[in-house]
Amino acid sequence: MSPHAFTVPPEQRYFEDYPEGAVFEYGSVTVDAAEIIEFARRFDPQPMHVDPEAAARGPFGGLIASGWHTAGLMMRLFVEHFLPRGAASLGAPAIDELRWPRPVRPGDVLRIRVHILEARPSRSQPERGVVRTFVEVLNQREETVMTLKPVNLLRRRPAPPRR
Amino acid sequence: MSPHAFTVPPEQRYFEDYPEGAVFEYGSVTVDAAEIIEFARRFDPQPMHVDPEAAARGPFGGLIASGWHTAGLMMRLFVEHFLPRGAASLGAPAIDELRWPRPVRPGDVLRIRVHILEARPSRSQPERGVVRTFVEVLNQREETVMTLKPVNLLRRRPAPPRR
Repeated sequence: MSPHAFTVPPEQRYFEDYPEGAVFEYGSVTVDAAEIIEFARRFDPQPMHVDPEAAARGPFGGLIASGWHTAGLMMRLFVEHFLPRGAASLGAPAIDELRWPRPVRPGDVLRIRVHILEARPSRSQPERGVVRTFVEVLNQREETVMTLKPVNLLRRRPAPPRR
Repeated sequence: MSPHAFTVPPEQRYFEDYPEGAVFEYGSVTVDAAEIIEFARRFDPQPMHVDPEAAARGPFGGLIASGWHTAGLMMRLFVEHFLPRGAASLGAPAIDELRWPRPVRPGDVLRIRVHILEARPSRSQPERGVVRTFVEVLNQREETVMTLKPVNLLRRRPAPPRR
């Protein structure tokens, strides 16, 4: 199945542009060692993420990216390509089942695949919709390195002005 | 109940130092506007995170931190104070129920509270243990801004050498 494409640019997307069952693919982004170390020194300073020599002796046999770094790279692709741009993106209050089944190593080339699991109008706030997705992060060998199920709140398309 | 304190320094901690039911608190860290914007430009470039004027007109009434930024600040405290330092920390393959119930704004002062929900030896790898925690990120008003349930793999304490 070929990935879905939006029919409107990011600035014009609303809840109604996210149909249940659609699948999208975006990327790629290349991960480099200096960036892995720099991110991890700031947010996740464990030897497997910041010290190539210690990482080589560790459980992964070499330097690997912090899972939060992989999440950041995923998010960048998700924001740039998938979400509405501007006022229709109302944030993400929840993520379930965040998994890192395989490590991300220097030189890996990552892309994302986004499946829309559910798209429904909000019960409490009628101007909003709730979009639940399953996001996979894949590397250049088609291996899954991260998965998650975010919940995004999106503004519904305003009704056209009455004449 | 006062928070738990480890009886051994981070370099000497193993699975056995993480008892079920113990509660730990660490922090604080202050979040500033420039850092919010810089992080989000790189990983989550949505108006609510990178553009103070657009953010003021948006759903949160002002600039808020990317949830991934809050996660990174949480992780820094988790790594520096809670996890074993060095070879006994074997990574975190999964996180469940990641939530951001309230926004994080410039000037907020965050700390973490870690509850050990479960600590059990690994079934498949006897030299490892599995530690499941519930982590809360609190601000200076005692409001919860983020919660999550990570699973961490920790090495078990090696048996003393036989004589």
